[in-house]
Formats: sequence, structure tokens, C-alpha cells
Amino acid sequence: MGTAQLTAVPEPKYWHLRTVLLRAIDSEFSTGQVIPNERELSARFGVARATLRQALDQLELEGRLVRRRGIGTLVAAPRVGVPVSRREEGWPGSSREQAWQPVDCVSVAAPERLAKALGVEVGALVHTVRRLRVEQGQIVATELLRVAEEALEQVPEIRLSGAAAEGEEQARVVLRRLERLTVDGESRAVELGVAEAEEAGLLQRPPGTPVLVVTTQYASAGRLAALAVSTYRADTCRLTFGETGLVEVTPVSAIRTAS
Amino acid sequence: MGTAQLTAVPEPKYWHLRTVLLRAIDSEFSTGQVIPNERELSARFGVARATLRQALDQLELEGRLVRRRGIGTLVAAPRVGVPVSRREEGWPGSSREQAWQPVDCVSVAAPERLAKALGVEVGALVHTVRRLRVEQGQIVATELLRVAEEALEQVPEIRLSGAAAEGEEQARVVLRRLERLTVDGESRAVELGVAEAEEAGLLQRPPGTPVLVVTTQYASAGRLAALAVSTYRADTCRLTFGETGLVEVTPVSAIRTAS
Repeated sequence: MGTAQLTAVPEPKYWHLRTVLLRAIDSEFSTGQVIPNERELSARFGVARATLRQALDQLELEGRLVRRRGIGTLVAAPRVGVPVSRREEGWPGSSREQAWQPVDCVSVAAPERLAKALGVEVGALVHTVRRLRVEQGQIVATELLRVAEEALEQVPEIRLSGAAAEGEEQARVVLRRLERLTVDGESRAVELGVAEAEEAGLLQRPPGTPVLVVTTQYASAGRLAALAVSTYRADTCRLTFGETGLVEVTPVSAIRTAS
Repeated sequence: MGTAQLTAVPEPKYWHLRTVLLRAIDSEFSTGQVIPNERELSARFGVARATLRQALDQLELEGRLVRRRGIGTLVAAPRVGVPVSRREEGWPGSSREQAWQPVDCVSVAAPERLAKALGVEVGALVHTVRRLRVEQGQIVATELLRVAEEALEQVPEIRLSGAAAEGEEQARVVLRRLERLTVDGESRAVELGVAEAEEAGLLQRPPGTPVLVVTTQYASAGRLAALAVSTYRADTCRLTFGETGLVEVTPVSAIRTAS
């Protein structure tokens, strides 16, 4: 074949330490347990504090360790499997689905890029519903769900009693209208991203935290009905697509090396 | 609702600069263009070189910039959409599928964890095929495909002429046998990982590079037939699942902010 290049790239010192630490964590500690402090660890592994800290930072980024002020560094719980598909997650408007909680809604004339993404004219009315996904009591994702008013044309407008609908109430109205559409297709893209300031705040993580960005197009009656951009915490989530339920998906670390 | 916490987490200086730089790149430069050097940039934005470098590192990690020795820092090409589903990608054994190139194969008695992951007895014979995925001339992923010999029981062993099959040849034999099974289900999980030394070498990236790890279970005749762990470069790939083909999925940056 000739394409395989098995020449190893030189491994930085902290990276080697990270691998050694990971093995120690896997074999000696259990979830939620506090690992020894930095002084003890640097003595045990015979490394400088700076190198140790770099390795610990890396493991925290990977979601293997969690630092708690006043407690120390703990072994993180395994990532939560989060189903990502309409069948399991429910159509975005589904009221039966409690995983997604509406936060607010903004309705504006679409600027150029958004209009293009939704396949509508510039200036067309677009609703943006913001939601949070909660799993096992933890916020795992934040989402912007975009729906052009014209995609809801067939669905009667739901009037709210009293004053103009705002925020969360308006979000519920848009979702309820969306629910009446029949979804006949969806396509998804998953990519690595970093939490921007606003998302970071909602996910309760610092800006720049790695996230998994899922972009979903929902089609109804041959046209794009809604576009969702969901931002999942990459440290705590594993996105799952259509489980066969045959054998539980094993943590990747167990099966990721060739021998 | 009460769950939304819109209080902004304080933004580090380099993070703010990264966002400013990103906006400048989007509006003033095109793919492949060399951006000004560090001295010019730190003068233009009035920041210390260390802060600038941190912001540039971040944008490189995000796959927005590429550093080329002797040339400078370039605006990276947009991420490649890589279809991840059997329909588009072909059953792992499919010889029609050229995207995955077999590299080698190791056949061993399964240790405990691997046996559990495959739902076979400890010590059962397991083939591990290593493959590389090439898209547009670039290596985008490396994969370990695990197949228990007993899952291939119904499929006659293919004998190779001459000496015992090894490496790439053995990989092709396993894939050809796998191809004769009918797949009746598959389930996937996608999560963030970091390239371990061996994978990093194959992907031609330094160890620790962020990757998207896709674990796929293939079911045949009600049992697990194969287990694949694919490691995609997170800087250059966007994984796609079942495109509706209605509207091209827009780069996420265009639609990721609420207003």
C-alpha cells in the first residue's frame, strides 16, 4: 500500500506521563476517588511539578480527572451516553421530550448567512429557540434551533392570551407549531468546536472548553423545516446513534490499542 | 425555568484575541492565504507576543490556521465532510469501497476486555484489521476493526496460495469474509479523544492532537459481527450522517451565535 507511516512522532515528556498516570488511575482508583496531591505525584513519578501539571491539565481536558476546589483532584465519572437521533430524542418540538428545556426565543429578519443556511430570502422572519439539554441532572448541551416562519406556514399561529409572547413562552409556541409538521428526513454533522463565551456560560465551563458541535437539518415536505446547532460538553458526553442493544458499547480505552 | 445561567464566565485575554483574529481571518483573508507574521499581528492588535501565540495555537488546534515551516501561518481549508454510515461508507468488508485502505492484520486470543467488548469468551480468536481512510488524497482517519473468528463461522475460510497470510494480505482475507455477512444493524458512538502515539504517527500529527473517536458495532444475524474504533482528525474532518441534500450544511461559525 505504501500509505502507512508507522514512524513514531517523538512523544513529549508530559504526554508520556499522562499515559502512565492514566494507567495508574485505571488500575488503582475508582470513580470519585481523590488522587494524591501534586507533591506526592511528582515524587512518585520523578517528574517536575510543571510537567505533572501539564499532564493533569490534559487528563482534565479529556474528562478523566476533575479538579474540585478545597477537595483536590478526583477520578471523573465515565462519560454519559447521549442519544442523538430523532427516534430517541424526539422531534425538536415534541412536548413528550423532557431532555430539552426551552430557555428563550428571538424572532428576527434573517441576515444573509442565516438566510442562506435556512434556504430563505434575506430578511425573512426566523425564530431562534435556545434550549438546554439536561441528562442525569447535569446540563450537557445548549442548542440554537432555527425555524423560518414560512416553514410553519401551514401551521396556524398559536396566539397567547394577554401580552405579546416573549422569551421562554414564545419558545414553547414555536416548538408546538413545529411539532405539527411531519419530519421526513434529517441529516447531521458532528465536529469538534470550542465553547464560545455565551455557550460556555450556559454549559458552566470556561470559554475555549472543547465541545462537540452537532448541526442537524430537519426536512419536512421536501424542504428544510428547521436547523439546529447543538453544543455538547466534550468532557462528559459520548454521542450515540442508533444502539443495536446487542452488547454494551465498551469504554473506548479498552479496545483502542492494536494488541 | 431557572436552569439557564447567563452569567458570563470571565474571558481570558488570549481567548478574546482569538475571537477578534477569527473575525479578521473570516473577513480579510481567504483559504491558503498567508496571514501577517507575529510581530505585525502583535503590533496591530496591541498585545504581547505570548498572548498572540496562545491565540494562534488555539486557532491552529481548531483547524482554522495551519503553520508551515519556511512559509508562515496560512488560513486553513474548510473541514472535509466525511460520511459516516454504512450506506455511504460501505460495509467494512466492501471491496467496492476505496476510502478505507487495509494496512495490516493481527490475529490473537482475546484478552478479557476485548473479549467482553466483542461478546466472546476470553481466549477466542480475534482478528484486528488496521485501516486508513483517505479522502481527497489526505489521511483523515485510522481504524481498528475487530472481528471474532466465530462471527465468521458460516463463512468458509479463504485459503491463500503459498505461505501463511500476513499483514495486509491477511487483512484483505478477513475483510472479504466479513463482506459475505449480511449486516442487519449498526450502532455508533462519537466522542472526543486525543491521538495516542501510534495513531498520531498514522495520522501524521503529534501525539495529543484532538481526534473524534467513532465506535461502531455491526450486527449480523442477531449478534455482534464486528467492532470498529475509528479515529478521525478533528482539525480537518466534519463527520456527516445521512445528508438530506436539501441545503448544503453551512459552516457552523455562520449560524452559531444567537443573534
